[in-house]
Amino acid sequence: MSSEAETIAKTARRASNIIKTLSNEQRSTALKSIYDTLRDHKTQILEANEKDLAEARAANFPSSLIKRLDLTVGDKYDSMLQGVLDVAALDDPVGKITLATKLDEGLDLYRVTVPVGVLLVIFEARPEVIANISALALKSGNAAILKGGKESTHTFKAMAACVTKALEATGTVPAHTIQLITTREEVGSLLSQDMYIDLVIPRGSNALVRHIKENTKIPVLGHADGICSIYVAKDADAQMAARIVVDAKTNYPAGCNAVETLLLDESILSTKTFPTIIEALLKAGVTLKVTPEIELWLTKNDITIPESVKVVPATEQDFYTEFLDHIIAIKAVPSLADAIEHINEHGSHHTDCIITKDEAEANTFLKGVDSAGVYWNASTRFADGFRYGFGTEVGISTNKIHARGPVGLEGLVGYHYQLKGHGQIAADYAGAGGNKQFLHTPIDH
Amino acid sequence: MSSEAETIAKTARRASNIIKTLSNEQRSTALKSIYDTLRDHKTQILEANEKDLAEARAANFPSSLIKRLDLTVGDKYDSMLQGVLDVAALDDPVGKITLATKLDEGLDLYRVTVPVGVLLVIFEARPEVIANISALALKSGNAAILKGGKESTHTFKAMAACVTKALEATGTVPAHTIQLITTREEVGSLLSQDMYIDLVIPRGSNALVRHIKENTKIPVLGHADGICSIYVAKDADAQMAARIVVDAKTNYPAGCNAVETLLLDESILSTKTFPTIIEALLKAGVTLKVTPEIELWLTKNDITIPESVKVVPATEQDFYTEFLDHIIAIKAVPSLADAIEHINEHGSHHTDCIITKDEAEANTFLKGVDSAGVYWNASTRFADGFRYGFGTEVGISTNKIHARGPVGLEGLVGYHYQLKGHGQIAADYAGAGGNKQFLHTPIDH
Repeated sequence: MSSEAETIAKTARRASNIIKTLSNEQRSTALKSIYDTLRDHKTQILEANEKDLAEARAANFPSSLIKRLDLTVGDKYDSMLQGVLDVAALDDPVGKITLATKLDEGLDLYRVTVPVGVLLVIFEARPEVIANISALALKSGNAAILKGGKESTHTFKAMAACVTKALEATGTVPAHTIQLITTREEVGSLLSQDMYIDLVIPRGSNALVRHIKENTKIPVLGHADGICSIYVAKDADAQMAARIVVDAKTNYPAGCNAVETLLLDESILSTKTFPTIIEALLKAGVTLKVTPEIELWLTKNDITIPESVKVVPATEQDFYTEFLDHIIAIKAVPSLADAIEHINEHGSHHTDCIITKDEAEANTFLKGVDSAGVYWNASTRFADGFRYGFGTEVGISTNKIHARGPVGLEGLVGYHYQLKGHGQIAADYAGAGGNKQFLHTPIDH
Repeated sequence: MSSEAETIAKTARRASNIIKTLSNEQRSTALKSIYDTLRDHKTQILEANEKDLAEARAANFPSSLIKRLDLTVGDKYDSMLQGVLDVAALDDPVGKITLATKLDEGLDLYRVTVPVGVLLVIFEARPEVIANISALALKSGNAAILKGGKESTHTFKAMAACVTKALEATGTVPAHTIQLITTREEVGSLLSQDMYIDLVIPRGSNALVRHIKENTKIPVLGHADGICSIYVAKDADAQMAARIVVDAKTNYPAGCNAVETLLLDESILSTKTFPTIIEALLKAGVTLKVTPEIELWLTKNDITIPESVKVVPATEQDFYTEFLDHIIAIKAVPSLADAIEHINEHGSHHTDCIITKDEAEANTFLKGVDSAGVYWNASTRFADGFRYGFGTEVGISTNKIHARGPVGLEGLVGYHYQLKGHGQIAADYAGAGGNKQFLHTPIDH
């Protein structure tokens, strides 16, 4: 007997086997259909959303969660709609030939991008993810199972009805290509469907991502912590360092690409670079968690701590912490090598930066730091799919294989090899019993 | 307290952080050093190998295992040595720029290939894997932990001493870059070091691969079963079909790219294509496991079964089985769509083939079958890194993400993003508080 989760996963696999054969035009038409349906049912969806909001307020949910739930904040609804059209307009990620080799006359090998297959997307609160991930999955030829948090159930059901209706209207894309799961079925049982589900994409808190990574054998695309560091090297420009550090810390402290750790080369503690950076952080209202030698140099430099901010001793744990707030941990390191070692040991392999005028030092840092993004003289806040020019962002991955860093649609495709022959058999070729040699010449494509 | 496995894994991580910063020349020099040392210590290694062989014979190990253990079979030792030089001569897989975008004036983004990090390679019997995988890991800038089976302990220790000595001789590559583990430490405790190990590569039986996949959260590069199918469509050329099927089945039945399932379009059962294929298989000494309708047509065609071969009824399980022998399961399917569905349900997503003269049918098959290799009119036996022109083969992957199909050195690298700026901060740009627009123009590279 199949469990409910297995039935859902098998249904997704069957839909995947159909949608992956459709053309870019057919897939993009489904996105336009979703756009139309969500636009035409705005009233009903916002009514459902108001029910979720009322229940959330009654349950005294934190205001940050209520804000994430609320589809009427600013232009959230319209930008959600526009996002669907934007994804439809992107280049087709499927069917790209990335290698073409003539193995022999009339025996041509092509490596071609194909959809990954079945995605499981698990998210919290934000109902606009439904539109966004449906668009991304369909555009890249994947089937997707969407599982939302229970706090957005009413909105989720209203939007799910629209997506299903929109797909039915296409006549080509199976309605089950996007399955929106609102049953009580536990996420855990979906996470065990590694026979049918190819990739899990968590969209939510670090705790959610960590929970998922701990509980599945399916590859997970995403990141838990974003512990980014900036190392200010010996000959950094003081003003540049101060500007970058303040931007990376304060531009959006809740972002995973915000800086959490500041490593200062020991040699700059006795120069004016040190007070320049520290005073800029204090002026920006950032709490400093400092090691004893930093505290000593604060005193030596006679730096005044404004009333509104705090300077406190750092613990070892602070250098493993994503503060997501106006807080930064600061320590001194004896050398570039120590900075690299610190980052590789304590960081989360997300995005790390060196500030220096010395190109050789920068290159050593870029080669030595084991992170998805390695920056020279630029704010870590640039780590973002839109800023990188990808047009969309599936997430930011700290995995070592497949997609890494900000991930666009290319993270939702893999590849396969197509071999087109005229009856060739292996036994005719050298190494398998015959005398024929392979040509291995590139094919123009 | 660190466990022994954790110490090994951490040591590998530290070595990884060094070797990934070395040049192609430095890495390739280490390969030449390994070549020299293994060549100079051939006598000692073969003496150690003889001890393993004596113990294996005394323990009555099967002759196939003894053959795999034996480094003196044919030119095994010399071709192992040549393999190390061949890998050294390949293009550097590290440091390739795969995307370059000017985000703004003086703010350049590069996507650059980098080593994956730390590999855990688990293998059985074949001691030549030590030279092969050491070469592949070093060439691609990775550290590796090698764990062999206990039946090759003497050979393993002798070769491990050579590899360590060879690396020490380089003066640049840390000796611990390749750790050869001969302790009693269980594989299980290494498989749990997902903090430090980035990729597991099993080199051995299906049972080994399955065990590893079941017992680790680290991504596994490889495949368990190779259940490949050939579908003979309505208008297949009879002679071509017979030649391809016989080659795919008999050229090397123990290979993962050998065909196991033959799907015949119902429409060919009443044509002479059917007896042509069947008689070719019988002549090649292949046992046929057939469904009732195939059996019926065997009778109708009055096909004589030679004494030396068997025709037996197929069970449903036969279509999920990798026979690794002169056995093939045969069934009829009503249509191309049914063939695709059968393969997606029963196959192992390795390599599958359609034989047809109809290009439209072929393209439907190539798009619809969910496998690493999809072939049109060519033997499945071509699924191989050397035949594809990669110069080496790390393994054949049936994963959906990262490397798929025959994997060359590119399966041992990932990428990171390098951003090179001049003090740019996010707050100056639109979307993060400022007015500057991104350029997103390609950089020549």
